[in-house]
Amino acid sequence: MEITKKVRDGDVRTVSRLIRNIEDRIPGAKDTIKHIFPHTGKAHVIGFTGSPGAGKSTLIDCLVAELRKRDKTVGVLLVDPTSPFTGGAILGDRIRMQRHALDPGVFVRSLATRGALGGLSKAVGDAIHVLDAMGKDFVIVETVGTGQQEVEIINHAHTVVVVLIPGMGDEIQAIKAGILEIADIFVINKADRDGAGKLYRELMYMLSMADEFPGGWKPPIIRAENMFAADSFGKSLHELTDTINAHYQNLVDKHLLGDRILRKAMLELNEALHNAILDPVLTELVETGDMRRMADMLLKKETDPYTLADEVAGKYLRE
Amino acid sequence: MEITKKVRDGDVRTVSRLIRNIEDRIPGAKDTIKHIFPHTGKAHVIGFTGSPGAGKSTLIDCLVAELRKRDKTVGVLLVDPTSPFTGGAILGDRIRMQRHALDPGVFVRSLATRGALGGLSKAVGDAIHVLDAMGKDFVIVETVGTGQQEVEIINHAHTVVVVLIPGMGDEIQAIKAGILEIADIFVINKADRDGAGKLYRELMYMLSMADEFPGGWKPPIIRAENMFAADSFGKSLHELTDTINAHYQNLVDKHLLGDRILRKAMLELNEALHNAILDPVLTELVETGDMRRMADMLLKKETDPYTLADEVAGKYLRE
Repeated sequence: MEITKKVRDGDVRTVSRLIRNIEDRIPGAKDTIKHIFPHTGKAHVIGFTGSPGAGKSTLIDCLVAELRKRDKTVGVLLVDPTSPFTGGAILGDRIRMQRHALDPGVFVRSLATRGALGGLSKAVGDAIHVLDAMGKDFVIVETVGTGQQEVEIINHAHTVVVVLIPGMGDEIQAIKAGILEIADIFVINKADRDGAGKLYRELMYMLSMADEFPGGWKPPIIRAENMFAADSFGKSLHELTDTINAHYQNLVDKHLLGDRILRKAMLELNEALHNAILDPVLTELVETGDMRRMADMLLKKETDPYTLADEVAGKYLRE
Repeated sequence: MEITKKVRDGDVRTVSRLIRNIEDRIPGAKDTIKHIFPHTGKAHVIGFTGSPGAGKSTLIDCLVAELRKRDKTVGVLLVDPTSPFTGGAILGDRIRMQRHALDPGVFVRSLATRGALGGLSKAVGDAIHVLDAMGKDFVIVETVGTGQQEVEIINHAHTVVVVLIPGMGDEIQAIKAGILEIADIFVINKADRDGAGKLYRELMYMLSMADEFPGGWKPPIIRAENMFAADSFGKSLHELTDTINAHYQNLVDKHLLGDRILRKAMLELNEALHNAILDPVLTELVETGDMRRMADMLLKKETDPYTLADEVAGKYLRE
C-alpha cells in the first residue's frame, strides 16, 4: 500500500495527514492502521503525566534534546484531554517545542478530542503506531492528570513518568494514590521550591508501603531543579534519560516487556470492540429517531434507562 | 417494592447500602433504580468542579450549612475519579463535612471507581436518583478537574459551579477553554491571594468573547475570600447560594430546564446501552478465552485490533 510505504519512509506530510484523519475518525484511517500494524513494535513508548503547571512540556522538550544528542529519533504526542468540547486547544508553552521543528529526527503533534466525547485514547494508540512505523526510536506521549481517560492514554506506554511539583495542596494525596499504581519513574520538578523535601519524603513513605514491585523495579524519584526551565542540561536530565533506558532494559531482562505490550494490545482491542459493536448501534438509534423517542419516554418518566437499554440489546444482539 | 418505600422514607441504612451496591455494580441495584426512577426529578442538582486544592470541599461544606439555614435538605456526593485502581480513597479534608453527620437533613457519601475502569459517571447518575427519591431538595456533586469523565459526571447537574484559585500556572488557560463550556457559575476561591485580579480579568475577557449565552445567562463570577476557610458565612456565601437559585429559576423561566434534564437522560441512556450491549460481549469473550487468544494474535502481529473487532461484531450483532 502506497501510504504504508510513505509512512515507513518517514514522509512528514503523509504522517501529518494520517494523524489528522485518525483524530477526525475518518474511516479510511482505520484501514491504513491495519496495513501499518505489522510494521510496529520497535519504538520505546514513554508516557508523561502530572498536574497542570507541573512543567511536563519543558521537561519533555529537554528530554528530546538529550535523546537527539544520543543520536536517537523521537516522536512526541501532546495529548489534551481537558477540553472535550472545544477541541484542539493549543497550549502556549507547547510553542517551546518549536525549537525542534526544523530537525527531521523529531516529529511533534498535538492531539485533542474533536466533536463527540470518547475515543481519544484510541486515537493516541493509533498515532503511536504511526510514529513507531515511521521509525522513531522513542515515542513520547504527554497527558495531564490521572483521571480514568488519562490512565487509559498512559497505558499505551512502556515507561510511565509522573511529574510532580511541591505545594499543590492536600488533595495531591488523592492523586498520588492513583499515581502510585501507574508510575515507573517519579520526577519532582521545581525541586528548589518550598515543600520539595516534604513531597520527596511522602513519596518515599508511600513507596515503602508497597509489598513488592513487578520485576523488582522500585520507581526511582528524580529531583529536578530549575535547570530545565533554565534550558541547561544538567545532572537531572542525564539521570532521567538513563533511568528511562534502565527501566526499559529491566522490562526486557525480567521478561516483563510482553506484559506491557499485552496491556496495550488489550486496551486497543477493547477500544476497537467499542467502535465495532456499540457505535453502529448508537448511530442507527440516532438516524432512525429511536434515540429521541427513547429520551422523550425518559423525560415523561414512562420508563427508565435500564429497561430501554435491555430492549435495544434484545433487538441488536444475537441470542 | 419494599426498598423503594424505604428510600422514599429516607431510611439512611437502606440508602447507604443501595449506593454501595451501585458503586460495586451489584446487579440487583439496577432493578431498584428501575423502581425508584418514577419518583425522581424533584431535586435541584448542583455540580462542583475545579482543580485539586481549589477548596471545593470547604465551599460545599459552607453551602450545605447555608442551605440548612434556609430549611432545605441536602444530599452530597463526593466523587473521586482520580484513583481508578485503588478505589475509595478518603480525602482528609472531606472529614470537615463530618459536622453535618448528625443532621438528618444532610446525607453525605463518597463515590470512587472500584475495580474495573469506567462506569463511575453511571454510578453517580444512579446515586443522584437515589438521593432525589429520598426527598433531598438539593443534591450536590463534587468532582475534580475537567477531563472527559469529570465532564460526564458534571453533566448530571442542572447547575455547574466551577471553582478556580489564583496562581495555578499558565496551563490553567487550557483548562479554562474546557471550563467555559460547562460553567454556569464561576467561583474564584482564595480571592485574597496574589493573581486573583488577573484571573478575574482573564475570565471576564473569555466571557466577553462568547457570542451568546443560552437563556441569556452569562456565568457570574463570585469572588470568595478566605471567609470559607474561616468557617464564617459571609457575603460571598449568600451570593453563591442566591446565584445558584437564580440560575435554576432562569432555567425554568427560559424553558431550558427540559434541555438539562434531556442532557442527563441522554447521558444515562448512552451509559445503559454501553452496559447492556458491550459488557455482555466482553464478558463472554473473557469467559470463553477468546479475549486471550485474540491478544496472543495481536502480540504475534498475525492480525490487527480493527480486523479482530470487526469479526467479533459480525458474530455478536444481528445483520
